[in-house]
Amino acid sequence: MIVVMKSSATDEEVAHVIKRIETVGLKGHLSQGVERTVIGVLGQTFLELRDMLEMLPGVDEVVPISKPYKLASREFQPEDTVIRIGDIAIGGEEVVVMAGPCAVESEQQLLETAKAVKAAGATILRGGAFKPSTSPYHFRGLGEQGLEFLAQVKKEAGLPIITEVMSPSEVELVASYADILQIGARNMQNFDLLEEAGKTRKPIMLKRGLSATVQEWLLAAEYILSQGNPQLMLCERGIRTFETYTRNTMDISVIPVIEKVSHLPVIADPSHGTGKWYLVTPVALAALAAGADGIMVEVHPNPDQALKDGAQSLTFDNFQQLMSQLRPIVAAVGRRLAAPSVKVRS
Amino acid sequence: MIVVMKSSATDEEVAHVIKRIETVGLKGHLSQGVERTVIGVLGQTFLELRDMLEMLPGVDEVVPISKPYKLASREFQPEDTVIRIGDIAIGGEEVVVMAGPCAVESEQQLLETAKAVKAAGATILRGGAFKPSTSPYHFRGLGEQGLEFLAQVKKEAGLPIITEVMSPSEVELVASYADILQIGARNMQNFDLLEEAGKTRKPIMLKRGLSATVQEWLLAAEYILSQGNPQLMLCERGIRTFETYTRNTMDISVIPVIEKVSHLPVIADPSHGTGKWYLVTPVALAALAAGADGIMVEVHPNPDQALKDGAQSLTFDNFQQLMSQLRPIVAAVGRRLAAPSVKVRS
Amino acid sequence: MIVVMKSSATDEEVAHVIKRIETVGLKGHLSQGVERTVIGVLGQTFLELRDMLEMLPGVDEVVPISKPYKLASREFQPEDTVIRIGDIAIGGEEVVVMAGPCAVESEQQLLETAKAVKAAGATILRGGAFKPSTSPYHFRGLGEQGLEFLAQVKKEAGLPIITEVMSPSEVELVASYADILQIGARNMQNFDLLEEAGKTRKPIMLKRGLSATVQEWLLAAEYILSQGNPQLMLCERGIRTFETYTRNTMDISVIPVIEKVSHLPVIADPSHGTGKWYLVTPVALAALAAGADGIMVEVHPNPDQALKDGAQSLTFDNFQQLMSQLRPIVAAVGRRLAAPSVKVRS
Amino acid sequence: MIVVMKSSATDEEVAHVIKRIETVGLKGHLSQGVERTVIGVLGQTFLELRDMLEMLPGVDEVVPISKPYKLASREFQPEDTVIRIGDIAIGGEEVVVMAGPCAVESEQQLLETAKAVKAAGATILRGGAFKPSTSPYHFRGLGEQGLEFLAQVKKEAGLPIITEVMSPSEVELVASYADILQIGARNMQNFDLLEEAGKTRKPIMLKRGLSATVQEWLLAAEYILSQGNPQLMLCERGIRTFETYTRNTMDISVIPVIEKVSHLPVIADPSHGTGKWYLVTPVALAALAAGADGIMVEVHPNPDQALKDGAQSLTFDNFQQLMSQLRPIVAAVGRRLAAPSVKVRS
Repeated sequence: MIVVMKSSATDEEVAHVIKRIETVGLKGHLSQGVERTVIGVLGQTFLELRDMLEMLPGVDEVVPISKPYKLASREFQPEDTVIRIGDIAIGGEEVVVMAGPCAVESEQQLLETAKAVKAAGATILRGGAFKPSTSPYHFRGLGEQGLEFLAQVKKEAGLPIITEVMSPSEVELVASYADILQIGARNMQNFDLLEEAGKTRKPIMLKRGLSATVQEWLLAAEYILSQGNPQLMLCERGIRTFETYTRNTMDISVIPVIEKVSHLPVIADPSHGTGKWYLVTPVALAALAAGADGIMVEVHPNPDQALKDGAQSLTFDNFQQLMSQLRPIVAAVGRRLAAPSVKVRS
Repeated sequence: MIVVMKSSATDEEVAHVIKRIETVGLKGHLSQGVERTVIGVLGQTFLELRDMLEMLPGVDEVVPISKPYKLASREFQPEDTVIRIGDIAIGGEEVVVMAGPCAVESEQQLLETAKAVKAAGATILRGGAFKPSTSPYHFRGLGEQGLEFLAQVKKEAGLPIITEVMSPSEVELVASYADILQIGARNMQNFDLLEEAGKTRKPIMLKRGLSATVQEWLLAAEYILSQGNPQLMLCERGIRTFETYTRNTMDISVIPVIEKVSHLPVIADPSHGTGKWYLVTPVALAALAAGADGIMVEVHPNPDQALKDGAQSLTFDNFQQLMSQLRPIVAAVGRRLAAPSVKVRS
Repeated sequence: MIVVMKSSATDEEVAHVIKRIETVGLKGHLSQGVERTVIGVLGQTFLELRDMLEMLPGVDEVVPISKPYKLASREFQPEDTVIRIGDIAIGGEEVVVMAGPCAVESEQQLLETAKAVKAAGATILRGGAFKPSTSPYHFRGLGEQGLEFLAQVKKEAGLPIITEVMSPSEVELVASYADILQIGARNMQNFDLLEEAGKTRKPIMLKRGLSATVQEWLLAAEYILSQGNPQLMLCERGIRTFETYTRNTMDISVIPVIEKVSHLPVIADPSHGTGKWYLVTPVALAALAAGADGIMVEVHPNPDQALKDGAQSLTFDNFQQLMSQLRPIVAAVGRRLAAPSVKVRS
Repeated sequence: MIVVMKSSATDEEVAHVIKRIETVGLKGHLSQGVERTVIGVLGQTFLELRDMLEMLPGVDEVVPISKPYKLASREFQPEDTVIRIGDIAIGGEEVVVMAGPCAVESEQQLLETAKAVKAAGATILRGGAFKPSTSPYHFRGLGEQGLEFLAQVKKEAGLPIITEVMSPSEVELVASYADILQIGARNMQNFDLLEEAGKTRKPIMLKRGLSATVQEWLLAAEYILSQGNPQLMLCERGIRTFETYTRNTMDISVIPVIEKVSHLPVIADPSHGTGKWYLVTPVALAALAAGADGIMVEVHPNPDQALKDGAQSLTFDNFQQLMSQLRPIVAAVGRRLAAPSVKVRS
């Protein structure tokens, strides 16, 4: 942490800042340049210190110089995190494809979709039983019955499943069904939920909040990791900007950014990231070209009948086309597609 | 809901859209202009229909024309909602001032602050017992002990209290202490929490999410109102933009916008809205000039020692100055300051 | 400028950075903390140096600690800039009201409006002769004829005029008619235009760009000031955010921010800032409560017939009401309304 | 254009709206649904009409249903625009790589870079002679001498050149040297410049403004096209969001969006789009996977000595690596890399 003094700061003010730093057990190191006097804080700083020092007379600004996340950082763990789900490894050389309906609507809809996406090459089945909805008057998922359909279809189709958990009190229930727990964008800073999920021993996928910075996202990850659960992957699903043509703006550059500053795998969700089915394939290809460890896409037998997010869902045909366009891209970046799992963890 | 067809749409495609509308029990009304063919949907539409129709061949876009919130709308309830807490009325002619520390740190800190803000004219005491923190390693509040300090100080200082609730499972506990339940920006779309709070009979203050649109905010309000709790006020606390000088960008215009489209009172929080103590007073005055029903500000005996948000907290002196500058503004807009309550609800 | 080294940086890398700093004639000052090694750059740094140092091996980031603008800064000139236009002073105790049609449409429309706004208390007449338009197919102003109407009405109504200049080659022409040259938001970084305007000796009003930071805005101001023209005022007219209810989001907090970091007067434009006539008055009052030195509002005899921006224009009646609500706010912040000028500079 | 009436609108108000529509020579078509009364406007509408109608009593909102751009739209011209520069075709099957220094610093720097990027497979040489700079105190390019160096190096290296023009009065000069005129992000709505460039017969590359919507971008394109110059390509270079890790946020999805709504080629600029050299390659690959017709990247012999944008510039080695990673991606999307031109237009 570095304290930049105003050009008008007096010697007394400088001395006062150094004294204040010492009262919290740290040391101030004075550096007088031509531009400004700056004071480096030596020792283990803490976030609150910034506010404390910024209040002092003569201080212009306080600049933190170390990252507030630790366990999620590449500095802390240089090697990539690789998460194993049965035969599938996420975060290694393989690229995974998670596909399925936005919401579980019926066992038949789910099973039909599961078979179709598996046949096309998907490795993990997605489907929401508990669904967030901006309006209280809309479809919010089948709840526990949806989980049971997921369990049934998992067996029949032989695909591990990822599904969303929305409340701390439901973590245990959802974890008893899911292979991967998904935490949605709107819950990225639901800290109780993060900690509860971190207490399970299930792999977790943490979506980026609609207007979350990289640092906030990794601090949310830190909530999970610090509970002792290292099986964490991140998911970029678009951020909110002024642009209204797309539902969100997919931040492709965050994929290599995360790869640089963190060891956690990154999945891309072009369905929510764009909100329009005809943009899903090009943006999925872009994400993989940029280094994503996998993609998550919404597929529905009849998008125009879907109870949720039909406009961004692919038909079975469209999904098959996506898969055929995706293979050469995966090869071009020197990776390979994870094969659909035969045996799954029961 | 209006379906705009592509200029290249065929008669068959138009007929197909009308037929699809009829399958959900509604009626399509054709309107052929020079620019485009449009089909108006007659009957009670639902959000999912938009996606369903947008998928159909020949459709360019689907434009919803009715607002998705109902109970929160001015159309539904033309007269202003006025919330009574003891002698204080929020949303009427009076303007309320909520003040206190960001976080409850000790009984003494709270009591001292309560007395100072009451003496200066505040009507409600704020103070967080459960505190959201972007990092798991920072101070997250005293929890239940903080609530007890609040209860104690409420009695001693004679001020009703507002405090935050962060988890559905803690609603009952917090409601047993608080006069007003606060739901924070990061929880604006924590739907379980909204419903749980809506089940209490306590007044609620719902903060706007960091990147929430007016419509999303009112839909979150709808979650609370639809549980039968009409004692709801909204709180603008700044939105996220590209500007980095301020912590957030206070959206002052949302105050008259809410007044136009909704009957709910609006409070302004210039402390979080700006992040800098020296901007709190001018932005508080601006909010009241724009029609806010009250303000919420952070006050601390020693901001440079605060465990949280010191940089945006006012000293007692600064708060007194704010109050003296605020009175003529309140008068200028034809309102009056709520008097500190003598009796409080126990 | 401070160079923060990676925690993995070697002694050689540190030495190399210091040497690089010395090659540009500056000095590096080493500070080794527990967290990180940092190197302070002593001497007059320059922006390009940041990029140069950030490239070097072992460097994590480079943090500039001095502001890149000088002439516009409060540090450079502690006292407020006050601009005189005839009897009117902008930036002092008085508050100015600039009002008039978005675009000059005819001499009669302009004269009628000028008389109405003057009668209601406006001090300066606004009206665009050259109008920016996002589409090449829409009304783009009357051009030089519009300037002549402005000159004529200025004489008849006795109000100084402000009008926009859009191109470097038209600066001389517009300056020969206008009392204040307005540079629009879309031209905030039209650097040739800024310099050309800076060469005149006319007062200038520089609008903030749609997504300009405070620093970029003040650097644009610096382009004008560095040409020797100190008669500069700034104008906040709303920034672009995700919110779509309003045309832009008025950044009220930027008014006290500018007052803190700069000596230049700030005007608020709630017409463009909101895009809706019924939001103009509350946001105008807010701006003045926050310390704005004046407001600029669009007024039209028949907004529903306006060739441009009718939806955000006030009728004569609405403007009169704004003025009557504005007076007590101006008094509440200890200022007074500038009186309409009797004599104007010819 | 569709006029949505308030639910409280009276028959008189509806009749008044229809009458107003008729006064501008159009026809109103009434459609009374259960939700709301809507009036469709039949005939060729114009943007100003929206404001005019939105002002009328009883009107809730006015929804435009046709796009305001015409010449730039895919509806107007279904086939792709292909621009030929010597042997190179932009917008067809080939993918072009434009590379070179941000700013021309010397003939030697430019020639050395030109040879290196050509050897690695670049097809067009970029280099700025006139450089926009946010600060008046920084390097702003060599001006006409920079153009002469470009002309010289074009001959020696055998690469066509693209360079920026910043002012309407310099269009003729720059066009006499450049093979492609570049219009920068800050000038996207410098309407005089757009028209002046549209009057030349040179290919033009129009960058997207920092906070420009797709519609505004295409309307800016319309300014050029409507002057009779159809040789226009667009360039995505990142938009402004709340994220500060990257200089801008590259909007990859805009590439397939433009491909859908327009016939104009799209180039991606990952150097400005990210601001960090180590993000350039992954984001360049992403852009090509998403369907970009080319990329533009900054390359410098010694990025840490660059006078401008060193932090986002690639070394010769890094550029070579980019090219080798790019080839398989280009093949994977079924396209081929344009070969460096042997003969160039003199």
